[in-house]
Amino acid sequence: YDHAAEAVLPTVYERTTAAAMKAEAINLGQGFPDGEGPQWMRAAAAEAITSDAGPTNQYPPGIGLPVLRDAVAAHQEAHYGITLDPAHQVLFTTGATEGIAASILSFAEPSSEVVAFEPWYDSYGAMVALAGAELRTVPLEAPEFRPDIAGLRAAVTERTSMILLNSPHNPTGAVFTAEEMTEIVAIARQAGAVVMSDEVYEHLTFDAAPHTPVLSVPGAEDTAVAVSSVGKSFSLTGWKVGWVTGSASLVNRVRGVKQFLSFTSAPAYQWATAQGLEDDRGFFAENQQQLQGARDMVMSGLTATGLRPFRPAAGYFILADVSAVTDKTAAEFAAELVEHAGVGAIPVSALTLPSTQQEPDNALNYLLRFAFCKDDEVLERALSRLGKWI
Amino acid sequence: YDHAAEAVLPTVYERTTAAAMKAEAINLGQGFPDGEGPQWMRAAAAEAITSDAGPTNQYPPGIGLPVLRDAVAAHQEAHYGITLDPAHQVLFTTGATEGIAASILSFAEPSSEVVAFEPWYDSYGAMVALAGAELRTVPLEAPEFRPDIAGLRAAVTERTSMILLNSPHNPTGAVFTAEEMTEIVAIARQAGAVVMSDEVYEHLTFDAAPHTPVLSVPGAEDTAVAVSSVGKSFSLTGWKVGWVTGSASLVNRVRGVKQFLSFTSAPAYQWATAQGLEDDRGFFAENQQQLQGARDMVMSGLTATGLRPFRPAAGYFILADVSAVTDKTAAEFAAELVEHAGVGAIPVSALTLPSTQQEPDNALNYLLRFAFCKDDEVLERALSRLGKWI
Ligand SMILES: CSCCC(=O)C(=O)O
Ligand SMILES: CSCCC(=O)C(=O)O
Repeated sequence: YDHAAEAVLPTVYERTTAAAMKAEAINLGQGFPDGEGPQWMRAAAAEAITSDAGPTNQYPPGIGLPVLRDAVAAHQEAHYGITLDPAHQVLFTTGATEGIAASILSFAEPSSEVVAFEPWYDSYGAMVALAGAELRTVPLEAPEFRPDIAGLRAAVTERTSMILLNSPHNPTGAVFTAEEMTEIVAIARQAGAVVMSDEVYEHLTFDAAPHTPVLSVPGAEDTAVAVSSVGKSFSLTGWKVGWVTGSASLVNRVRGVKQFLSFTSAPAYQWATAQGLEDDRGFFAENQQQLQGARDMVMSGLTATGLRPFRPAAGYFILADVSAVTDKTAAEFAAELVEHAGVGAIPVSALTLPSTQQEPDNALNYLLRFAFCKDDEVLERALSRLGKWI
Repeated sequence: YDHAAEAVLPTVYERTTAAAMKAEAINLGQGFPDGEGPQWMRAAAAEAITSDAGPTNQYPPGIGLPVLRDAVAAHQEAHYGITLDPAHQVLFTTGATEGIAASILSFAEPSSEVVAFEPWYDSYGAMVALAGAELRTVPLEAPEFRPDIAGLRAAVTERTSMILLNSPHNPTGAVFTAEEMTEIVAIARQAGAVVMSDEVYEHLTFDAAPHTPVLSVPGAEDTAVAVSSVGKSFSLTGWKVGWVTGSASLVNRVRGVKQFLSFTSAPAYQWATAQGLEDDRGFFAENQQQLQGARDMVMSGLTATGLRPFRPAAGYFILADVSAVTDKTAAEFAAELVEHAGVGAIPVSALTLPSTQQEPDNALNYLLRFAFCKDDEVLERALSRLGKWI
């Protein structure tokens, strides 16, 4: 990733959304729901802007509104039994993206190495490059996409400053187990590296798969920061209210960078997010059930087209192997799909190293990501288009 | 500024606000108005969250809502005769702070030098350090705080990658003239450096002092990016809607970094900001007049205490020389003021290099910044406390 390039591209999500709009295709690329999130949270945000009940329209504290930090701490206690001091162990960020950026800029030392599972969320690679560090990857392999602990152990050296995790994982839908999380934290501790765990899909696990937050794992207290946000948990991806949690000392270092990235933002969205975290009014369960139904429908539909989809245990996305129906790479196939079938999807290669993209035999180059966080009717139409065209 | 330090401090604005709250003092530190911004803009933002009239609650485009980019371009045309293509020359950012951060991370090359006038806005120094570049400064001197063009020319070398400007200037209140802006841009062009011009106080000039946007100056088109925001122009500092403007090529490079800092944010605030920029309904003039009155009142009040204030031509702040009443530095004096007089203010030394802070004869160490963007009654009380205590 070359930040100094004259023609830096928009993110793959934006390029796919733009291509889908241009081709008037159904957009199963960028991960955002068709719905609009809980009406009661939207009403709370609106009320906060116009009335005197909520925060003012002036700067909220850089670390976030007290009511939001309290709610994040209470949510972690209620769901996972994790105890956090809201004054020192919870930092508001402008979405998980800013939490990721500030964490990487805080802990990825220039000239050090950062290890991540591949594929990853695209901002990881960009921010590691911006920090002047080098990205090393450990591949996740179909059909289960389990983290390869031995591979991770081999990839981590004394030059490793950070390990980047994401569980539940985008784009594979893998949910790391408590044992896997524990081993990863132990590897980091031994190397003196900091773990950043991106947990934005924490409330979107299926078939009752349990989410293991990094901070619940032994040894994490002085080794790991966790990142999460309102977007996926409440189907409000535009709100961009995120938080970083961990020990006071690690969170304080992230704050030291974050305060100069955006200083603060969005008091009304923070206020309403606090209300959602305090009591989700059944939204988490309802949303899980709805998404699980969509997952099952899209799994069958993709199987019927001849593609080979892998059942995700969580999240918004299904990966499918395109080599069952074509010799093309997923990137080439995606370009045809959006043009001719009228369906936008994201090739997993966009979420891998350039060197991986150049390996003709690498299985990651034949995986395509479909978002199923869409209305049933939209998904049915997309599946029928795919079926006809393939 | 040491990002890796275990105990990174909160910004000076936050430390002053916290000290003022603790001492139950009147806070003339952090620059935010007592008021709440135009009610009609707040209503528009609230409406955008709950109704289907505005943007959705899902991701807005990373570069910002089209309606906001159009409004920024229309505003620049109407106020300054600057023509911008809203599709390629306007980038939404999470407040001016993110525009500053992304610009510096884009153009300040590691191991290069960045030149700024001193004192500066604190995030400049922090971001230059994070970019791995070195800050060189050119002091602004009382009573006029005019940019020293010869000094700037001497400070810029072939190692200079960026020049950071801020006009109208925080904290001095100086408004750079068209001639000064033109010379600064010429110096940057000759050095092959990029100019970042922070213009967030553009609508807060007094006595009809004309604001010269950098993009109106010859040669700026391929040399400069401008940063501005909703916060100060509309007394809505918590909204954190900012924008970066300039040539398509420079703005595209800033986008390349910005998209991984926060990706996007705050669709409702973006929507309502667009309405304000399209037609401010007289707010700019009204606000200027109100602030100018407050400035005059605080100038007289500070003079009466024995301090030596310098009349600002713009902005939220008055600098006053404390050496007329004490041998202490402004930092020491500020600590006493908040404790004993019950008034919080910011020593200018917090906005200078550590090396400057160590020079006992440097005039910047004896300047104290008072915010006057407060209700008359609050200002009167603060002045009376100051008068009694001094
Ligand atoms: C920030 S746009 C990307 C949204 C997302 O999380 C995804 O599609 O993976
Ligand atoms: C981002 S808090 C600082 C506010 C401000 O612009 C100032 O006080 O100078």
